[in-house]
Amino acid sequence: MPKPSLLEAFPNPYPRRDYEIVMTCPEFTSLCPVGGIESDAEELKALEGGAPDFGTITITYSPNRKCIELKSLKLYLWSFRNDGIFYERAVNTILDDLVRVVRPRRMTVTGDFNTRGGIKSIITARVGRTAR
Amino acid sequence: MPKPSLLEAFPNPYPRRDYEIVMTCPEFTSLCPVGGIESDAEELKALEGGAPDFGTITITYSPNRKCIELKSLKLYLWSFRNDGIFYERAVNTILDDLVRVVRPRRMTVTGDFNTRGGIKSIITARVGRTAR
Amino acid sequence: MPKPSLLEAFPNPYPRRDYEIVMTCPEFTSLCPVGGIESDAEELKALEGGAPDFGTITITYSPNRKCIELKSLKLYLWSFRNDGIFYERAVNTILDDLVRVVRPRRMTVTGDFNTRGGIKSIITARVGRTAR
Amino acid sequence: MPKPSLLEAFPNPYPRRDYEIVMTCPEFTSLCPVGGIESDAEELKALEGGAPDFGTITITYSPNRKCIELKSLKLYLWSFRNDGIFYERAVNTILDDLVRVVRPRRMTVTGDFNTRGGIKSIITARVGRTAR
Amino acid sequence: MPKPSLLEAFPNPYPRRDYEIVMTCPEFTSLCPVGGIESDAEELKALEGGAPDFGTITITYSPNRKCIELKSLKLYLWSFRNDGIFYERAVNTILDDLVRVVRPRRMTVTGDFNTRGGIKSIITARVGRTAR
Amino acid sequence: MPKPSLLEAFPNPYPRRDYEIVMTCPEFTSLCPVGGIESDAEELKALEGGAPDFGTITITYSPNRKCIELKSLKLYLWSFRNDGIFYERAVNTILDDLVRVVRPRRMTVTGDFNTRGGIKSIITARVGRTAR
Amino acid sequence: MPKPSLLEAFPNPYPRRDYEIVMTCPEFTSLCPVGGIESDAEELKALEGGAPDFGTITITYSPNRKCIELKSLKLYLWSFRNDGIFYERAVNTILDDLVRVVRPRRMTVTGDFNTRGGIKSIITARVGRTAR
Amino acid sequence: MPKPSLLEAFPNPYPRRDYEIVMTCPEFTSLCPVGGIESDAEELKALEGGAPDFGTITITYSPNRKCIELKSLKLYLWSFRNDGIFYERAVNTILDDLVRVVRPRRMTVTGDFNTRGGIKSIITARVGRTAR
Amino acid sequence: MPKPSLLEAFPNPYPRRDYEIVMTCPEFTSLCPVGGIESDAEELKALEGGAPDFGTITITYSPNRKCIELKSLKLYLWSFRNDGIFYERAVNTILDDLVRVVRPRRMTVTGDFNTRGGIKSIITARVGRTAR
Amino acid sequence: MPKPSLLEAFPNPYPRRDYEIVMTCPEFTSLCPVGGIESDAEELKALEGGAPDFGTITITYSPNRKCIELKSLKLYLWSFRNDGIFYERAVNTILDDLVRVVRPRRMTVTGDFNTRGGIKSIITARVGRTAR
Repeated sequence: MPKPSLLEAFPNPYPRRDYEIVMTCPEFTSLCPVGGIESDAEELKALEGGAPDFGTITITYSPNRKCIELKSLKLYLWSFRNDGIFYERAVNTILDDLVRVVRPRRMTVTGDFNTRGGIKSIITARVGRTAR
Repeated sequence: MPKPSLLEAFPNPYPRRDYEIVMTCPEFTSLCPVGGIESDAEELKALEGGAPDFGTITITYSPNRKCIELKSLKLYLWSFRNDGIFYERAVNTILDDLVRVVRPRRMTVTGDFNTRGGIKSIITARVGRTAR
Repeated sequence: MPKPSLLEAFPNPYPRRDYEIVMTCPEFTSLCPVGGIESDAEELKALEGGAPDFGTITITYSPNRKCIELKSLKLYLWSFRNDGIFYERAVNTILDDLVRVVRPRRMTVTGDFNTRGGIKSIITARVGRTAR
Repeated sequence: MPKPSLLEAFPNPYPRRDYEIVMTCPEFTSLCPVGGIESDAEELKALEGGAPDFGTITITYSPNRKCIELKSLKLYLWSFRNDGIFYERAVNTILDDLVRVVRPRRMTVTGDFNTRGGIKSIITARVGRTAR
Repeated sequence: MPKPSLLEAFPNPYPRRDYEIVMTCPEFTSLCPVGGIESDAEELKALEGGAPDFGTITITYSPNRKCIELKSLKLYLWSFRNDGIFYERAVNTILDDLVRVVRPRRMTVTGDFNTRGGIKSIITARVGRTAR
Repeated sequence: MPKPSLLEAFPNPYPRRDYEIVMTCPEFTSLCPVGGIESDAEELKALEGGAPDFGTITITYSPNRKCIELKSLKLYLWSFRNDGIFYERAVNTILDDLVRVVRPRRMTVTGDFNTRGGIKSIITARVGRTAR
Repeated sequence: MPKPSLLEAFPNPYPRRDYEIVMTCPEFTSLCPVGGIESDAEELKALEGGAPDFGTITITYSPNRKCIELKSLKLYLWSFRNDGIFYERAVNTILDDLVRVVRPRRMTVTGDFNTRGGIKSIITARVGRTAR
Repeated sequence: MPKPSLLEAFPNPYPRRDYEIVMTCPEFTSLCPVGGIESDAEELKALEGGAPDFGTITITYSPNRKCIELKSLKLYLWSFRNDGIFYERAVNTILDDLVRVVRPRRMTVTGDFNTRGGIKSIITARVGRTAR
Repeated sequence: MPKPSLLEAFPNPYPRRDYEIVMTCPEFTSLCPVGGIESDAEELKALEGGAPDFGTITITYSPNRKCIELKSLKLYLWSFRNDGIFYERAVNTILDDLVRVVRPRRMTVTGDFNTRGGIKSIITARVGRTAR
Repeated sequence: MPKPSLLEAFPNPYPRRDYEIVMTCPEFTSLCPVGGIESDAEELKALEGGAPDFGTITITYSPNRKCIELKSLKLYLWSFRNDGIFYERAVNTILDDLVRVVRPRRMTVTGDFNTRGGIKSIITARVGRTAR
């Protein structure tokens, strides 16, 4: 199960400047919830859960008082590894968990998931408005 | 013939957030209607219909109350396989069928079709406005 | 000589929706008018005209009542094959000829021509405004 | 069902020279036989057969007395469209059918099939030895 | 733990022809054994084992009497998911397990693993000689 | 009609060394002979001959006493522009014409032609053996 | 020394339409002024001037009454070959020279120069506003 | 330690025109501060500091009275080589140091750093507004 | 100075099989020895040594009794960071140091170094013969 | 005129090992001799010689007693800048000049020249045999 308690923050060294941080994790993996697009009874026996999903998570944010600590983010994303979760829920959960920890000026989370059943999915959710 | 009845929806887990989903299906195939750019009498005998067309369908939408169920989308797109349909009609039909099922905030459907007669075609139709 | 009479249209099946069609023809060829950048007397003897030019023509439009018939477009573009014409004139002529036949909401024609004399040229002309 | 009777040959214009012809068809599609990796009961109802497979067929050969007629090859490959066939059988069948028609000095057939269940397959079979 | 018992074979439909099959699985994941290059005490608490490794497994073989059943291969590769194993051992184990099940004329297994500590590793092991 | 009389040679400045020259012409175009894969009655009226073919010609050779003069090669390849010729014949004709003019130690001609009817063709012919 | 007198113009065939022309010259070369980033005494002896610089010049403009004649542009850009000039000055000089000759609605000149001392430079200058 | 005193400027030759300069340095390296994502006790002994970080620094600015002297920029960026510094601080420091020296109309600094712990980071900071 | 004492080995788990390991390190950096291609007096003051060099080191070997421990390899390559060394010497030194530690059946070391003075260098050295 | 006297060598630090060095110079430029493929009277006035040629020179060799000094190679290649020379002669001249200076075990020089008149040329010459 995702463990938001693993996430840590450190003080933003330039809190007065509105600047941008992009973090990309191409090694995200979770399990498809039972009943998902490619799981069937036989496969479930192998993993005692759903079939594996793979994807790339990209986090873009403008820090306020705090920045996301990189190593804690890695551990947090690892905590989805054996969790059955739909794409839409995974992306929105990561966004909510990160926003709660660092309270950014704005943040976007994108999950770019591998093809399943011949169809590729990309989910994008954001909080706050772009400063242009 | 395309079967919109195959399409299924599931409740959007984050209905209050305006977020975006992109689904790409690079394995779309249908038949060219009789009289299309590359069919002729001899070829029609082989397939008892028009020549095969191939393309990639990309669906981008912001869900409202419902999300498109991935497996049902796959089956719906398969139902064009032995149907004679023009590119313009295929893209607009997919848009109309999906809008009817999930009533999104906005949706764009793009069909990127393989070269025929040395010319490549991309058709894009949308419903609703981009929230920027 | 370009033959606009070869162009044919068919009724737009979704005339009330403002949607977009992109057609790309990477096999456009014409002749450089006498005196152009790479022709000289000896070469002209070979072709009884100017040196060959090659390029990709891309047509992007939003149909109104009529759509461009794909096969007739192919024949129309072939009709430039043995015609001596400057890049600027070719792109603007194609735009004018197509606009006359399908009266689109808006249309853009781009000619992306191969390098001549170490310089590559791209010409873009449009009619109507982008609906954003 | 594959129809080898659609294949036609024409006389090799240079029968005394050992030269090579490569033909690539990126638009091959067939159906997965019932019980294949991604089919299930619900999907079968949609197509009254197995799930669609997609791939690229590449034929490399050195002609002897006859060459493969391009248009007849296209029609022959189309005839797999609604046929349930395993990858291994498809590639070896195409090789056998082509060899029977043109009796080449040597021939290789490769089927490069799209990912199914997260695994991509490439099958290569050949007849005769490379002349080096 | 890897479960070779998940692997299944089916009879080679063309046992007399020496042909080649390549299967590529870009979604292989296992765990780094305790003490591996990027694990440390804090991380181990998250997964109750080592840090995740990711890679692509490619299997190239020439079948004899039997072919590898694709779905069973998928399940077998999934069974490494929560197993702590070194790269060298993983590749050689997969080779040994597959050879035991299908007794091929020859087989090569390559593991192309993601960068760890700024260093990327590719391991290749084979059984039997190339027929050239 | 191809005009081999346009080809010219100049003395090889290093006749005693066995070295290699590769010349690539990506702007080759000819016409499909009447009855070819994509021509039909209506199209023929446009060009008073077959439909246009496009391709890249690559010539690799080791000069003996003479080298191919680049400008004359350009004019020679232009002379195919309005000629109806099959791929197999075009490649072998170019090889024979060039060999006659420069008598190389060895020469290979490859024609890599654009997709027609969804199938791409590459023809390769050679004279003399590779020196390894 | 750059010779703007080499530049020639021809009348714009469509002076009433606001359209766009892009010309790219990947073969620009000049000399680094004495004292530039990679020159030193020994090198200067070789060229009797500074070290060579290489880059790609891209000119984008919307013609008014006149268009740039392609061949004269080529000769003008060649005239920088043995001239010692800084990047910033080269790009702004080309813009000024071209504007003086064709008086465009608007024009942008970009110089994309090869890496020197491990640093790559791109300079962009423009005259007039984009019509959007 | 970064040495801003190494930075030098030269007078902008076109101070009245608002034009743009992009400088890209793909060879930036610094050290990870002690306690960073991949350092541990044993590694620190090797470098007597943190583990090495690598990245590409891109500087985009519109000069006012002064331009950045390229060679001095190279020396300034080299001065981070043996300095322990976090990504966020490095990018903002470079921006502040350059702004102090050349007082540009506007400037953006981006640091695109190599993957650490399976996560890639890009930091972007700017001063002044884009002139559009 | 390079410290071969940092290198560690572990027992090859499959000592009887002749298999292959490729390790790629794209983050190699050292210093150019005084007098190298881009250093000059002013630059040397910045680093108190030569200018930085960057490259990718690739090690391909077939293990005998021992395998190279990945983390120790990382530390060993880091130890070149502040060392002035020519490309040819660096590659041959790495080969000699690694051979001494693991006594492989065969090993190849390649250093692919970044462009200096507009010239890119790749050095490859090997010990033992390829088993084919 | 090319100045072989600029070339310098340094002693090979590993003279007993047969290893390989590849040096690539993508910034080679010379002039086309008068009468070449794209020059004409008007152009010649601009340069007081032939039109500029551009290409990439790649040198692959196995050193014997001496290695090519990188900076001297750069200066030597610069010395072709204002010299009118045919491609075939340039490549063979570079090979001869380098062989004379370092007496390698074997050496290959390749000149990959930019497209002229729509045709691209690559010339390769070598001395000595490959050690395999």
